[in-house]
Order: sequence, then C-alpha cells, then structure tokens
Amino acid sequence: MSFKTITIIGFGLIGSSLARQFKAKNLCEKIVCADVSQDVCDQVKLLGLADEVYTDLARGCKEADLVVICVPVGAYKAVGQAISSSLKSGAIVTDVGSVKFKAIKDLQPFIPADVSFVPSHPIAGTEKSGPEHGFGHLFEGRWFIVTPIDDGRDALAVKRVCDLWDACGANVEIMTPKHHDKILGITSHLPHLIAFSIVGTATDLEDDIKGEVIKYSAGGFRDFTRIAAGDPTMWRDIFLNNKYAMLEMIQRFNEDLTELQKAIRQEDGDKLYDLFLRTSQIRKGVVQAKQDDVPTKGS
Amino acid sequence: MSFKTITIIGFGLIGSSLARQFKAKNLCEKIVCADVSQDVCDQVKLLGLADEVYTDLARGCKEADLVVICVPVGAYKAVGQAISSSLKSGAIVTDVGSVKFKAIKDLQPFIPADVSFVPSHPIAGTEKSGPEHGFGHLFEGRWFIVTPIDDGRDALAVKRVCDLWDACGANVEIMTPKHHDKILGITSHLPHLIAFSIVGTATDLEDDIKGEVIKYSAGGFRDFTRIAAGDPTMWRDIFLNNKYAMLEMIQRFNEDLTELQKAIRQEDGDKLYDLFLRTSQIRKGVVQAKQDDVPTKGS
Repeated sequence: MSFKTITIIGFGLIGSSLARQFKAKNLCEKIVCADVSQDVCDQVKLLGLADEVYTDLARGCKEADLVVICVPVGAYKAVGQAISSSLKSGAIVTDVGSVKFKAIKDLQPFIPADVSFVPSHPIAGTEKSGPEHGFGHLFEGRWFIVTPIDDGRDALAVKRVCDLWDACGANVEIMTPKHHDKILGITSHLPHLIAFSIVGTATDLEDDIKGEVIKYSAGGFRDFTRIAAGDPTMWRDIFLNNKYAMLEMIQRFNEDLTELQKAIRQEDGDKLYDLFLRTSQIRKGVVQAKQDDVPTKGS
Repeated sequence: MSFKTITIIGFGLIGSSLARQFKAKNLCEKIVCADVSQDVCDQVKLLGLADEVYTDLARGCKEADLVVICVPVGAYKAVGQAISSSLKSGAIVTDVGSVKFKAIKDLQPFIPADVSFVPSHPIAGTEKSGPEHGFGHLFEGRWFIVTPIDDGRDALAVKRVCDLWDACGANVEIMTPKHHDKILGITSHLPHLIAFSIVGTATDLEDDIKGEVIKYSAGGFRDFTRIAAGDPTMWRDIFLNNKYAMLEMIQRFNEDLTELQKAIRQEDGDKLYDLFLRTSQIRKGVVQAKQDDVPTKGS
C-alpha cells in the first residue's frame, strides 16, 4: 500500500478515474472525496467511489497522507488558500493540471514547509466530464509527467508519487515545468484551441446550414467536435495559464496556414503534395509509438 | 441484381470497399478492376477482389453497364479521355469524388450522348489508402450524396445509382453540386486543411522536440495526425478543385482564430468560456445525429 489516506480534491473525470484505480489496485486504505459541488459529492456517494465525502475542502484534507488536486488550474489559488492550514505535517500534495509553470506559481505559496509538493500531469482523458464518466484503466499505458520543484527537499516525495502513478499502470516521465508547458502547448493546447475555433465557426452558421454540417460531420468535422467538447472551465483556465506559449504557437500556426492558403491560391500542387507526404510520416511515428488508440470506458 | 457488369476505376480504399460490398450483397454479376497501377492490379488479383483486372482503362470499361470512377479528382480529365470511346451505349458512369462542381466540369465533356453520368460522393472513409485496407461495411449507415446533372435525360439512371448505394447500406441524399461543395468544404475540406497545417508545423520542429511531440501526442495532436494521414494526391486534388470555397473558408476561420487569440491576449475568460460552451452543444448534435462513431475494418 502506497498511502494510508488519499484525498482527491475535484472528483471529475480524472479525479474519479484515479479513485477507481487506487481502489482497484489497492493503493491506499482510505479514499476521501473533497469537492465544493454538492451535486458531485452526492454522485460520488451514489457511485460508492470514496470512503468519505466532504464539500469542505479543509475538512477533507485533515487526515490525508496524499492530496491529489484535480480541479481546473484557475481554481488552484482558491484551493491552496482553503487547504493550506489543514494539511498534515509530512503530507504530500500533487496535482494533475495540464499547465505546470503557472500552476506551481499559484499553488506553491500555500504549501507549508513541512509538506511536499510534487506537480504531475497525466496525458490521458476523454472529452467527457464528471465522476460518472471516469474509469480506472484510463491511465494504463499512458504517460504521467512529473515536474518536480527543484528545491531538494522533495526527493523521497517525488519517488513516492512516481511509484503511485506507476502502480496505476502509467509510464512516468520527469521534466521541468517550462519544458512540459512547451511540449503540451504543441501536442494538446494548440490542437484544442484550433478545434474550438473551427467548431465555433460552425456555430455561427445559419441554422439550416448548421444542421447539414452536423448531418455530414463524418467527413472530418466530427473529430473536431469531439476535441472541442472538453470541459469549458478547464480549457479556459489552460489557455489563460499557458498564455505566452499559446500566443507564440498561434503565431507559428498562422504563418504555416497562410503559406498553405497561398499554395491553394497559386494552385501550387507540388507544395501541397510535399507537405501532405510529410504529415503522413508523422502519423507513422504516432502509430509506431503506440499512441494512436483512443481509450474508452468500455475498452 | 442491380447491374450485370460493374467496372471500378481506381481500386483504392473506396473502390475496393465498394467491390467487396457489391460482391457481399450480390449487386452485380461481374466486377471488373481497371487501375493504371500494375501494383494495385496485382494486389487486387491476390486478394480476389475482382473477376477481371486491367491496367488498360478503356479495355476495362468495354462491357460495363456501370462504371464507378474512384480516382483522385485531379485525374478525372485523363480518365475521361481514356474511357470515352469505349463506353457502351446505355451505360451509366458514376464517381465518388469529394468535389463535385469542378469534377463534373472535367468529366462531363467526355461522356457520350448515349451514356448517363450520375455524380456521387460517399461521406465515408478512413485515413488509410490502398485496396488492402478496404471493407464492405464502410458505407453502412453513412451518407451517400448524389448530385445529378440537371439535363433531364438521367432520371432513370439517377434512380438506379441511388438504389445501388442504398443496397450498399448507405443513406442517400440528393443535392446540387455547388451546395455539396459548400457543405463538404466546411465539414471535411477545411478540417483536413487545418489538420495538415498543424501537423505540418510539427514536422518543422527540431528532431528532439518532434520526438517528444509524437511521444506525448495523446493529448490531442494524435487525432490531428490521423486526419492528416489521408492520401496526399487525393487531398491535393480536393483543395485545388474546391479552391474558391477553400479560400473563403480559410478567411472565415482566420477571423475566428484571431478573435480567440485576442481573447487569450486580453485574458478575457468569459469570452473563451462562452465559446467553449457553444462548441460542446455542437458535439451533442453530432452524437444525437449518430455521426460520432468511427467505422473500422474490424468493427
């Protein structure tokens, strides 16, 4: 057993999936749910996902040997403020936020000197939100990135957190928060922003055309609607908290799209063909890296 | 039985899937493969997908009661030229191209007066190319759009082609070529162009970063690589042949992305949240329209 009591703050898709896996793999004695939403707490009780359930975050963290923060990054300051004084001496705090540099900046001031903070981020998820959509095997075979804060005191805590993610079936990688934000900006944040944008364009269409766009969405648009169906609060917070990386990458993307636009205008077929050949090579890399399968609750 | 002899020109993913379904549903007596690639013809023989196999397109069309053109739209003129004089009187020609207005313009001059031309387009496919990746149930429950040429003489031919797609398990819809190109521009061509662009941006990254982008692609980028893995020739031809609709849509997309960029720069969280809420509504429409499942060879 890795920890005696684990408190999960924010019992959405990721939080509830972790709870399921902790229980399935017998990784702790007690799971505590701490979520400010009474609705979520009621559902967690109904689904039997936690041993104790609190809407009061401070109360929920009192006995925790490990606290896992699974709320949108924009709520980190409020969560830090709420739990700071009730954290047990020797406890470890970790999180699963998609932005690390700004998240650490927001949360670290609230971590007492006798508590360790080990920021983490699983590259796993679905477009669905809420405790009812979680499933334990969500993390199996997926990457779990840990971005330790370089102040030396946390070496053992980092190891314990890494071991926990490993026990959940994930592959653990360690990197700096800034590097994490750069890589995830390219692999996750920019693709999502683009998907939100293109689906947003469709929401502005006249109603009859919009109906047809949905009807014939299997031509490619469908995949963008899935990407653009993520939790609005979570994604708003990601974009605002990884602002400068996002702005730089939008700029870069714009330059490349402008070039493509020019190739179409000038009917430069060779240029288009060359690019499309290169992009299909990248796909081969993804398939070879076994990152092409989408996990689902049923699988 | 719908037709005695059906010749399929271009035996790739769509052509070979149609051949499989024609055989499985007993929709014709004889299937003829006509493909200029000796490699493809060899593979079709090996897989036993056709009764006769020709690299000479004209020879392959001689006995056909129905000719189904399944080559990239950019090759329509060459195919028209090659088969024009060998088409049987009373035969029907159809196609499966993703662009209709320009495709009709390219092909129609080569259709003799005693032959009917019924342009079609199935909203079905995968990112894979080649006869070995086809499967008959690809069309089941999918839309098959027919865009008749309004010269009156083809009413019976249109009905026979619609009945054939219906017998393949597809849902048939009729619309004008221009309307087709507008709707598909939004639901298919623009999403693909955007995916090619964003994956292309990644191909320009330094090698070490590129490796990490592939490694952590499950965060969203993965889905774009699948969309951007389609056949380069086919997609080049689609963009060049739906040029004006593409340029207009890129312009519209750019305006919307610029607005999002500004919201991030100004940290306008409400604006982002409102958009993301609207896009998740569109997803609900797609799921309700049962267009959210991706067919695979194994399913």
